[in-house]
Amino acid sequence: MPAARLDATFAALADPTRRAIIARLANGEATVTELAAPFRMTQPAVSKHLKVLEKAGLITRGRDAQRRPCRLAPKPLKDATDWLETYRRNWEQAFDRLDALLDELQQPPTPTLGPRP
Amino acid sequence: MPAARLDATFAALADPTRRAIIARLANGEATVTELAAPFRMTQPAVSKHLKVLEKAGLITRGRDAQRRPCRLAPKPLKDATDWLETYRRNWEQAFDRLDALLDELQQPPTPTLGPRP
Repeated sequence: MPAARLDATFAALADPTRRAIIARLANGEATVTELAAPFRMTQPAVSKHLKVLEKAGLITRGRDAQRRPCRLAPKPLKDATDWLETYRRNWEQAFDRLDALLDELQQPPTPTLGPRP
Repeated sequence: MPAARLDATFAALADPTRRAIIARLANGEATVTELAAPFRMTQPAVSKHLKVLEKAGLITRGRDAQRRPCRLAPKPLKDATDWLETYRRNWEQAFDRLDALLDELQQPPTPTLGPRP
């Protein structure tokens, strides 16, 4: 996959409204009106976000001129996940080390001397 | 995790040089000089990218004033992966449907009439 594609995907994901739109579309297609409803946003503001998502290939829009329903296009999400998965080993190892450290800290200290008088 | 944190992570990942820096740091800590070497970039240009990564919490820098080695900080990568993993079901289903369609297209058509003369 060209780097520019991954740039566009990650840039599109760097916004809470666009991530919320993706979350909504994961449950099925929706029109702009349906997408705008849960946000305190005008339809033009939502449309602007949809354009970013569409340009990044994260959504496609239906041809019905009146409704133009939006659908999630899964390929860019898969590619972004694949890229991040490469580093799973890194963060898993880091969290394992942290767990080990926490376990160690929770052990009662080994008494090396008797109790103080 | 606050949405702003995820915004910063995805924005930081939306650049091929920063992704390459992350890929390099996944193999171990490195100084700015070491990071700049494989890129045709000046050290100040690399430092600029490091600041974005550091602000997003994706890297930490050592205290040694001379070297200030960079290290990958795994938590934001894990959180970004976790967010994307929520949609794994979506893209897996979409690719399964595509596979089924391709299998169908590769079947030889059922002859309903004899060969043409």
